[in-house]
Amino acid sequence: MSFTPLHDRVLVRRIEGDAKTSGGLIIPDTAKEKPQEGEIVAVGAGARDEDGERIAMDVKAGDRILFGKWSGIEIKLDGEDLMIMKESDILGVMA
Amino acid sequence: MSFTPLHDRVLVRRIEGDAKTSGGLIIPDTAKEKPQEGEIVAVGAGARDEDGERIAMDVKAGDRILFGKWSGIEIKLDGEDLMIMKESDILGVMA
Amino acid sequence: MSFTPLHDRVLVRRIEGDAKTSGGLIIPDTAKEKPQEGEIVAVGAGARDEDGERIAMDVKAGDRILFGKWSGIEIKLDGEDLMIMKESDILGVMA
Amino acid sequence: MSFTPLHDRVLVRRIEGDAKTSGGLIIPDTAKEKPQEGEIVAVGAGARDEDGERIAMDVKAGDRILFGKWSGIEIKLDGEDLMIMKESDILGVMA
Amino acid sequence: MSFTPLHDRVLVRRIEGDAKTSGGLIIPDTAKEKPQEGEIVAVGAGARDEDGERIAMDVKAGDRILFGKWSGIEIKLDGEDLMIMKESDILGVMA
Amino acid sequence: MSFTPLHDRVLVRRIEGDAKTSGGLIIPDTAKEKPQEGEIVAVGAGARDEDGERIAMDVKAGDRILFGKWSGIEIKLDGEDLMIMKESDILGVMA
Amino acid sequence: MSFTPLHDRVLVRRIEGDAKTSGGLIIPDTAKEKPQEGEIVAVGAGARDEDGERIAMDVKAGDRILFGKWSGIEIKLDGEDLMIMKESDILGVMA
Repeated sequence: MSFTPLHDRVLVRRIEGDAKTSGGLIIPDTAKEKPQEGEIVAVGAGARDEDGERIAMDVKAGDRILFGKWSGIEIKLDGEDLMIMKESDILGVMA
Repeated sequence: MSFTPLHDRVLVRRIEGDAKTSGGLIIPDTAKEKPQEGEIVAVGAGARDEDGERIAMDVKAGDRILFGKWSGIEIKLDGEDLMIMKESDILGVMA
Repeated sequence: MSFTPLHDRVLVRRIEGDAKTSGGLIIPDTAKEKPQEGEIVAVGAGARDEDGERIAMDVKAGDRILFGKWSGIEIKLDGEDLMIMKESDILGVMA
Repeated sequence: MSFTPLHDRVLVRRIEGDAKTSGGLIIPDTAKEKPQEGEIVAVGAGARDEDGERIAMDVKAGDRILFGKWSGIEIKLDGEDLMIMKESDILGVMA
Repeated sequence: MSFTPLHDRVLVRRIEGDAKTSGGLIIPDTAKEKPQEGEIVAVGAGARDEDGERIAMDVKAGDRILFGKWSGIEIKLDGEDLMIMKESDILGVMA
Repeated sequence: MSFTPLHDRVLVRRIEGDAKTSGGLIIPDTAKEKPQEGEIVAVGAGARDEDGERIAMDVKAGDRILFGKWSGIEIKLDGEDLMIMKESDILGVMA
Repeated sequence: MSFTPLHDRVLVRRIEGDAKTSGGLIIPDTAKEKPQEGEIVAVGAGARDEDGERIAMDVKAGDRILFGKWSGIEIKLDGEDLMIMKESDILGVMA
């Protein structure tokens, strides 16, 4: 089943960060919350500006992104846990 | 009786998710609330932009959509329970 | 006496829903509040967009509409109880 | 002394409703607050749109209007109690 | 020393209302607060609209105005107590 | 070291008011807070309007201004205490 | 790994201020919070205006900036602690 986000939303697969040291100890992250990493699975066609014209999306499927820890909402598609968020929730793209 | 949503509203028939395991046990959904699934029954003519022009709707009758659990309001038409929500409450379209 | 709503307001005559079963018992409506039904008596000339141009109304006198239970304010004209609300408070039109 | 309301404001003379029955008994108005009736004494030149152009007023001096009970502020001009409110506080015009 | 208000601000000299009866008794004003009267001393060049163009001011130095009791902030210039407020705080002009 | 404020910000050197009487007594300022006086040290290039065009600044370096007591934030540049605020925080210019 | 901030965001390397006197004593900063100093590592392509056009950024990589103490969020890239903030959080550029 495919899912097309509406407007300026994107579908994101979260990439779990490596919270272990090389020796395998789990490092408790008690400090200030850090952004999360993810990969874009699908993007919407873009929001519309005040004249009703589409605004092109600045990200595309496959982009590896950072987003705020509390951004987006979780959905389950074909048994996989994914997230839907707005493009504006994305902090930037890694390459 | 037909019902035409006004502006950028859509009329939605909720599709109840399958909350049972294959063996028939009900799985209590105590986790974070997930989006709901629905089918669009009717769409409005679209909101108007700042110049009063119609903004085309991005969804159409028959689309299978996901929407937030708390979106929309319930109405009963010809004895059927339906929902009215704004297009912007729709997270995306499944195909 | 006639009354012309200003801008994008409409004058509405509420249509009381039938809250009885065929046997005449009153069904207490303790569930989630449902929209109300009404008939449009008069419409304003429309709001103005950012350039001061009129935005045409999408409803007209005689339309049978649904609106949220808490929308509008009550007025009494020539002894009749009516309501004034904004067009945006109307959920849709029945036909 | 004349008073010209600024922008989209109007100067209103309140018309006291008849709160007596034909027999002269005062009817306590304990129900939901109803709109008030008034007559427009003077109107401003109109607000300006985003390009700085005047937006024409939809009401004029002499119009008999309804407005929300809590709209406007009271002023006293030449010993008379009047009200200043914004055009958008007016619900509609009676004729 | 001259003072030029910035943007759509105006410099106002408050005109104290006559709070005495003809016989000299002070009338305590315990009722709902009334607007204040003032005279415009200087006006700014006007705010800018969304395209950066000046929006002409609707009041000028010398205008006698009414403004809300809580509008503006007080300044002292050359030993005189004056007020600075935005044009939109002015209710209207007396003539 | 030079500092260029970004967008519509200005760099301001506060001018301490003379809080003493001619005889040298300090006058406690317990009354309503008055605006502060300052001199503009540097101005930004201006904010951008909705089309991305610069909006010219209405103040320039050297202008003597009044600003609200709680406006701006303090910075220290080359050992001097200065303030950064937005042009809109400036009440007016003295000459 | 390179990181490209999205829209009008910038990637910033904080420059720790020298909180010691020449004699090496740490000066407790108990006064009002001062802005922080940083160096821009990367800038986004710019936000889009109401017509969907890019708005050019006013800062570039290498710029030494001041920003509010509570601006931005922290990220770790290749083991280095950096910050992501919006261009509008930047107070000005030092040269």
